[in-house]
Amino acid sequence: MDCRIEKDNMGEREIPKNNYYGINTKRAQENFALGSKNVNLKLIYEMALIKKAAAMVNKELKQLSEDKANAIIQASEEVIKGRFDQEFIVSAFQGGAGTSTNMNLNEVITNRAIEILGGRKGDYDVVHPINDVNMSQSTNDVYPTALRITAIHMLRKLSNSLAKLQEALQGKENEFSDVIKLGRTELMDALPMMLGQEFGAYAKAIERDRWRVYKVEERLRQINLGGTAIGTGVNASNKYIFMITDTIQELTGLGLARSDYPMDITQNNDVFVEVSGLLKACSTNLLKISNDLRLLSSGPRGGFGEIELPQMQVGSTLMPGKVNPVIPEMIGQLAMRVMANDYAITMAASSGQLELNAFMPLIAESLLESLELLDNGIIIFREKCIEGIVPNKDKCQATLEKSAVLAAALVHHIGYDQATHIARKALREDKTIREVLKEDDVFSDCRINEILNPFEVTKPGIPGSIGMLEVSEILRVPRAPEQPDK
Amino acid sequence: MDCRIEKDNMGEREIPKNNYYGINTKRAQENFALGSKNVNLKLIYEMALIKKAAAMVNKELKQLSEDKANAIIQASEEVIKGRFDQEFIVSAFQGGAGTSTNMNLNEVITNRAIEILGGRKGDYDVVHPINDVNMSQSTNDVYPTALRITAIHMLRKLSNSLAKLQEALQGKENEFSDVIKLGRTELMDALPMMLGQEFGAYAKAIERDRWRVYKVEERLRQINLGGTAIGTGVNASNKYIFMITDTIQELTGLGLARSDYPMDITQNNDVFVEVSGLLKACSTNLLKISNDLRLLSSGPRGGFGEIELPQMQVGSTLMPGKVNPVIPEMIGQLAMRVMANDYAITMAASSGQLELNAFMPLIAESLLESLELLDNGIIIFREKCIEGIVPNKDKCQATLEKSAVLAAALVHHIGYDQATHIARKALREDKTIREVLKEDDVFSDCRINEILNPFEVTKPGIPGSIGMLEVSEILRVPRAPEQPDK
Amino acid sequence: MDCRIEKDNMGEREIPKNNYYGINTKRAQENFALGSKNVNLKLIYEMALIKKAAAMVNKELKQLSEDKANAIIQASEEVIKGRFDQEFIVSAFQGGAGTSTNMNLNEVITNRAIEILGGRKGDYDVVHPINDVNMSQSTNDVYPTALRITAIHMLRKLSNSLAKLQEALQGKENEFSDVIKLGRTELMDALPMMLGQEFGAYAKAIERDRWRVYKVEERLRQINLGGTAIGTGVNASNKYIFMITDTIQELTGLGLARSDYPMDITQNNDVFVEVSGLLKACSTNLLKISNDLRLLSSGPRGGFGEIELPQMQVGSTLMPGKVNPVIPEMIGQLAMRVMANDYAITMAASSGQLELNAFMPLIAESLLESLELLDNGIIIFREKCIEGIVPNKDKCQATLEKSAVLAAALVHHIGYDQATHIARKALREDKTIREVLKEDDVFSDCRINEILNPFEVTKPGIPGSIGMLEVSEILRVPRAPEQPDK
Amino acid sequence: MDCRIEKDNMGEREIPKNNYYGINTKRAQENFALGSKNVNLKLIYEMALIKKAAAMVNKELKQLSEDKANAIIQASEEVIKGRFDQEFIVSAFQGGAGTSTNMNLNEVITNRAIEILGGRKGDYDVVHPINDVNMSQSTNDVYPTALRITAIHMLRKLSNSLAKLQEALQGKENEFSDVIKLGRTELMDALPMMLGQEFGAYAKAIERDRWRVYKVEERLRQINLGGTAIGTGVNASNKYIFMITDTIQELTGLGLARSDYPMDITQNNDVFVEVSGLLKACSTNLLKISNDLRLLSSGPRGGFGEIELPQMQVGSTLMPGKVNPVIPEMIGQLAMRVMANDYAITMAASSGQLELNAFMPLIAESLLESLELLDNGIIIFREKCIEGIVPNKDKCQATLEKSAVLAAALVHHIGYDQATHIARKALREDKTIREVLKEDDVFSDCRINEILNPFEVTKPGIPGSIGMLEVSEILRVPRAPEQPDK
Repeated sequence: MDCRIEKDNMGEREIPKNNYYGINTKRAQENFALGSKNVNLKLIYEMALIKKAAAMVNKELKQLSEDKANAIIQASEEVIKGRFDQEFIVSAFQGGAGTSTNMNLNEVITNRAIEILGGRKGDYDVVHPINDVNMSQSTNDVYPTALRITAIHMLRKLSNSLAKLQEALQGKENEFSDVIKLGRTELMDALPMMLGQEFGAYAKAIERDRWRVYKVEERLRQINLGGTAIGTGVNASNKYIFMITDTIQELTGLGLARSDYPMDITQNNDVFVEVSGLLKACSTNLLKISNDLRLLSSGPRGGFGEIELPQMQVGSTLMPGKVNPVIPEMIGQLAMRVMANDYAITMAASSGQLELNAFMPLIAESLLESLELLDNGIIIFREKCIEGIVPNKDKCQATLEKSAVLAAALVHHIGYDQATHIARKALREDKTIREVLKEDDVFSDCRINEILNPFEVTKPGIPGSIGMLEVSEILRVPRAPEQPDK
Repeated sequence: MDCRIEKDNMGEREIPKNNYYGINTKRAQENFALGSKNVNLKLIYEMALIKKAAAMVNKELKQLSEDKANAIIQASEEVIKGRFDQEFIVSAFQGGAGTSTNMNLNEVITNRAIEILGGRKGDYDVVHPINDVNMSQSTNDVYPTALRITAIHMLRKLSNSLAKLQEALQGKENEFSDVIKLGRTELMDALPMMLGQEFGAYAKAIERDRWRVYKVEERLRQINLGGTAIGTGVNASNKYIFMITDTIQELTGLGLARSDYPMDITQNNDVFVEVSGLLKACSTNLLKISNDLRLLSSGPRGGFGEIELPQMQVGSTLMPGKVNPVIPEMIGQLAMRVMANDYAITMAASSGQLELNAFMPLIAESLLESLELLDNGIIIFREKCIEGIVPNKDKCQATLEKSAVLAAALVHHIGYDQATHIARKALREDKTIREVLKEDDVFSDCRINEILNPFEVTKPGIPGSIGMLEVSEILRVPRAPEQPDK
Repeated sequence: MDCRIEKDNMGEREIPKNNYYGINTKRAQENFALGSKNVNLKLIYEMALIKKAAAMVNKELKQLSEDKANAIIQASEEVIKGRFDQEFIVSAFQGGAGTSTNMNLNEVITNRAIEILGGRKGDYDVVHPINDVNMSQSTNDVYPTALRITAIHMLRKLSNSLAKLQEALQGKENEFSDVIKLGRTELMDALPMMLGQEFGAYAKAIERDRWRVYKVEERLRQINLGGTAIGTGVNASNKYIFMITDTIQELTGLGLARSDYPMDITQNNDVFVEVSGLLKACSTNLLKISNDLRLLSSGPRGGFGEIELPQMQVGSTLMPGKVNPVIPEMIGQLAMRVMANDYAITMAASSGQLELNAFMPLIAESLLESLELLDNGIIIFREKCIEGIVPNKDKCQATLEKSAVLAAALVHHIGYDQATHIARKALREDKTIREVLKEDDVFSDCRINEILNPFEVTKPGIPGSIGMLEVSEILRVPRAPEQPDK
Repeated sequence: MDCRIEKDNMGEREIPKNNYYGINTKRAQENFALGSKNVNLKLIYEMALIKKAAAMVNKELKQLSEDKANAIIQASEEVIKGRFDQEFIVSAFQGGAGTSTNMNLNEVITNRAIEILGGRKGDYDVVHPINDVNMSQSTNDVYPTALRITAIHMLRKLSNSLAKLQEALQGKENEFSDVIKLGRTELMDALPMMLGQEFGAYAKAIERDRWRVYKVEERLRQINLGGTAIGTGVNASNKYIFMITDTIQELTGLGLARSDYPMDITQNNDVFVEVSGLLKACSTNLLKISNDLRLLSSGPRGGFGEIELPQMQVGSTLMPGKVNPVIPEMIGQLAMRVMANDYAITMAASSGQLELNAFMPLIAESLLESLELLDNGIIIFREKCIEGIVPNKDKCQATLEKSAVLAAALVHHIGYDQATHIARKALREDKTIREVLKEDDVFSDCRINEILNPFEVTKPGIPGSIGMLEVSEILRVPRAPEQPDK
């Protein structure tokens, strides 16, 4: 392999001639040779955008010559377009608080800029990775800012995916609004309800997730560009500090703002714990919903069998005809992975010391993985599972009918103790509540019909009373506006 | 022991005559005899408040006689005052989704109400624990509502404690604003800074916590009273449903609102994961700050020794004169405990099935413990640690002077590579940067003074340039208003 | 309240005259006033045993006068008997690595010893809490040793409880060995099996837990008594170092051994992470089993309904006759709590620094809670749930018959694709496999009977082939002895 | 792209002609299109080894023709050699309990076998992926067995890496055995010790890890091959069941054994939680050691500065000459990742239901990642950090001398209270203990020298007494043999 020699104050390394990265990248690759994932490219792209912005500002401030600046800007844009993806070779799990990622990027942009200016890769007199490409910057302001920008973009995408999932669930709520079925608490037969209500409750939970994911973006908008190494701003000229925020705002189109206390942003990572905590809350809902769907579709004969999920693939290499709920199972695993990532983020964020947190690369890797998995997973969940669910109306009806849950409708009329007596008798003697009521001559037939109407029992109010509200009146009225304290 | 006999449909149990709890409580005590903590009394008191509210509404609706209702109301108030604390004997770790806690309370209120009405404990014809005290209710609407109310009260208290902690930290920020010292990244000598800035960055983090804790209350304001067992509202009359929310709003003084979809509240617990996630984010800050304080006060001779913490107790049974940072160590452990509780809450909240989550008691116990520990711990942290911190100015100054960090001020003037050369020479030959600059004749004495002024290096800008902003100008300007997207 | 004044080098404190604790305890109580749990008494008792042992050794070495030593020994024994439980008032969550617990104990023993010797509490010239009661010791060797001893005792108790649980499960394995039922994978109908096999698989998992819990005791047997503050042994005479281990061995009856490197034991806590990790593994089994039992007993009409759990208490305040699986629900929550405690232990054990881990109190509290909850919970689980389970044979049989799982028996005879075709047809047309085989004339009636015999399909081998092994031959042969590598 | 059409009972899919995977793989790729990691190839290779073994057995049992079997065997061997790595395209996070991975492998082997036999890919009449390649198998016995084999190989490798790390630490223990320094507890000055002792204590911790990792292999040796879908062994002939274990034993060279209760292995995953728990215990040690090294090397001027780590790369883009402890920082993050993976494994293992655990793919991915990261990370840690550490003897000595820790040597001679008085005076007046003793005329000069000899204070015994044991006598004696209970 044809190589060039690069030097630093620790010695020399051979770099393949075709490669744009340099000696710092090479050392980092060796130091963190874990055979695992490299740094997330989405993060690299946003860092490159900051490099571009810094070059624009420094050009305007006459700190960089027009030629150099333009070359750096062009090189940064090419990185963002994915042209140099293969040049980013440092492990996601790296020491140095992101310095190696920053240097990898500085070197790639530098060598490409040198090339643009007609120089030879490695000739850092033409363009210098630190003096020029990293001018007025530090890893410690570039990296946290890029992570915030990446996270904001991904949160917006995720919020959108959640919105569509919510809509799909509400679609099913409406579609199944007249399928009466057995409701269960603690897996035991409880009360009648509508199948649509299952999906309505799921939709409400996802609505909260969507809202949280949408709102939390605010916490990420403060950035510390210009704070340089510890947030005090050494080596960033004052004009730079003000202009860089405006420029990156312009380039991203996001409502970013200069932090009024950059040291805080440089050393504290609680906002990522907050964001991850919300992804974890979303995951508890996804895990609960996916588990419910697996339960409701269990069978086809030996389970609850109240719904059928779309069949996505052959389920077994041994049991013919078996089809498994593979999409909910995938979702469950993603939820668990997001929870595990939250653990890593929490530990890493707790481990900051004084002016910096050395463990930011773990935070970045874990947070971005959670965001990607959730977004992709939720789209699949909607398209390949939720939207294709069909009810098994007969099974829903039959199960409800053989249960004793209508006894709840009796409490108001005959008291809890006697209602219990009737329910237990029905179960013991394998009869329906209706049959026992008749047998024991508790009510007239007509009254029994009034009280035991299962549809009545899915609504607020006392079954068999006059003036029950329609379920829709209660369940679908617009939420009461938030109340001031009294 | 003098006993009365109580019966249920599973048989009989002896209850000590003096006790107000009944057979359901007794069975639950036996079933969950774990020798560990009982249910948090704060939760019991808020459940009793709901019992009172329900009796008020049912009295007005003529469902309960005036006498019965008044007796129930009085009994509930006595519970809230703590008069029957000894009667709540069921383990915090209980099956049944809180039913045992509800029944324990129903029985205590019932027997006290019977007593008030002149009856004998256990004579449930006078007042009935389910038909009367639990009228129009289910554990599944009372319990989640009470947990929300308890959590809101505790969040407000915690928000207040955080506010005072933030103030104390800001007090130190001002107090130490002129103590220059060495800043460190990755525990390595980095750049000069002010000791006050350490505390300023802590204050910013706690400010975010305070804000989060304050804001998240909103998510807890929706309640499902009237939803009864699965959220459909069976056995709660329509008028009751509307009146109970108004009444509990009145009694608590909180801005509670009826959920527009009670089934959601009954089965989904993601809001508690959200709240706990914020407590966890707060804990990452507390852990980071307390670790920093232990590091900065390490010594007295063999550590960083830049600050001294108040001495709270003798530190060692073997090493004379040793004093330990016991308060930060306690805070660290509380932070870890809150993180562990978050794990439990996440698992429990993920484990809901269909119309209910059977594991709510674990959620309640863990969340309330986290809230109590944080609130009490933060007050102690402020009073017994933060407020009494004193700086060790001489040590701060001396450490800075012997370091080579002023080399950063040279980068703009002589480039990164030559600045590195000078820094490494200084370290190697045990000289100061100033000495090396002189020796190598890089700048004139006068210029050296301009460039290396350590106070300049704690501010934004390029040391040695004209027109550096005062640190206060940058660091303390009001935060830029939040930006709309571009 | 009648008080005495005690002094330390930070000032004075009033101590109620009747109390045995002193000023160090008082300060610790104030410093860690969290309103939460105090130190686990089991740990205090084992620390008191070490105090007794140290006094015995120091008496023999003539370091303590006979009178003092005897008084200290008697006082320690009284602590162990629980006579002074009320005197241990320091929070479980304390800074100082256990020093406050040690001082609390030193003071109680000292004041009781003074009393025995006819002195007045607080007159530390008679007996001194550090010079005498703590002689040759440090918190840093007493505390880790006591925690190891406490844990060993509790592990033995837990191992015993697990053994009985295993036996109870095996009892059910035998009892239900002829109840044929549907086996399920991924909650979907899979293959026939015996109900006994469900419980056999649970018993195997618990057998592993029992073995692990039994074996891990070995890791806890190394102790660092005599290592004093950092493990180097300062202030412990050489003879003391050898004699104290023998004495504590004698007193505990446990196979304890002096560590060959006490510094290791003083600073490293990975053994507690190991122990907790095994409790967590046990918890995954308990959670899985308890969830299965809830699923298998779900219904009574609308769920799987294959078994019935003993009814332990009334299940609902609204739904008459409802009985919930409260014991498995409790077990599930204990399992989650143990997992959460493992999180706390892992974080705390990771946070040791240099010669000590300041967070040992959190490790102790969390580990002992896990051990107590598991032991008590498992006993309840066996007695109040497992032992009373009864099968619902008719339901088991009926569910199996209406399923299409016997199609698996066809694969060997007609290939996977055609077997799939038949299974899908049966499900689609609501027929049994047998009916479809007949209809399509695939096999003779006689051959169908051979192949589809469901009992055959619960055993190894190819259904319908000659020479199937009896299930018992395969499933119950003694485990093959462990193999050496090849 | 040139394609062939494949069919299953859900329809058709186009498969690129050059690819060996088939329609099941294609569907799985689409269903789990998460844009994240694919299945770990190490697991695929061991599954392929099982395919080979099964073909060998089925050939011998005349269930497969010689030709077909040989083609399958050859194809499996080619997979193992990595020839088809690009064909394994299914996400690591997949539903279906591993069925998709099994089918991906079945299809690749099948199409390659068809090719070997002169057929055209996709012509499953020549060789059939289920009837032939999967003969006598189920995902549910192949997958857990392959995971066990993969884990055993990786545990052995890791054990070896840990052994070398232990040796390197012991090397430093010896190398630094005469460097006296300050020991610290709770980061506060405590007692003198040797720098070698720091490393000795680390070596002991790693020794335990090595031992655990070595021993736990035993728990993985039981396999369920022949258990097929739920462990009952349907469709695996009896001879096959016995022969397959022998064959896989032979091929792997590992001491594998047939489980006496295959259903247990099929549904329970606690052994993976156990293994992961030990990796987590190892991680607590790695995190503690790496944090200590960062602390001890902090500076170079403003920190502890007692050791220097090898310089691996330039540390800062802004601060010239800065070098960071990047290798310990990487190790810390790996430790946190392993802990996070343990969380995922615990959740997944707890989520098994009845006869199977649908979440095994998450267990596999997480466990194998932990094993790979630890093994690679530990090798780097040793080579690029531990082995190159050098002490800063002067700094160690100077720090010790200016501390007041020698006061501990006084306790035995003048009592704790007076020793405290002297220590506090020394600190207050910025004097040494020696100076205060002289000033206060406590001992003669000669006696002071005897008592305060810092080397004496690093050994067991009472400083200044006759007959102190040499430190080596106590610290390095062979560990007392494990004791039987008394």
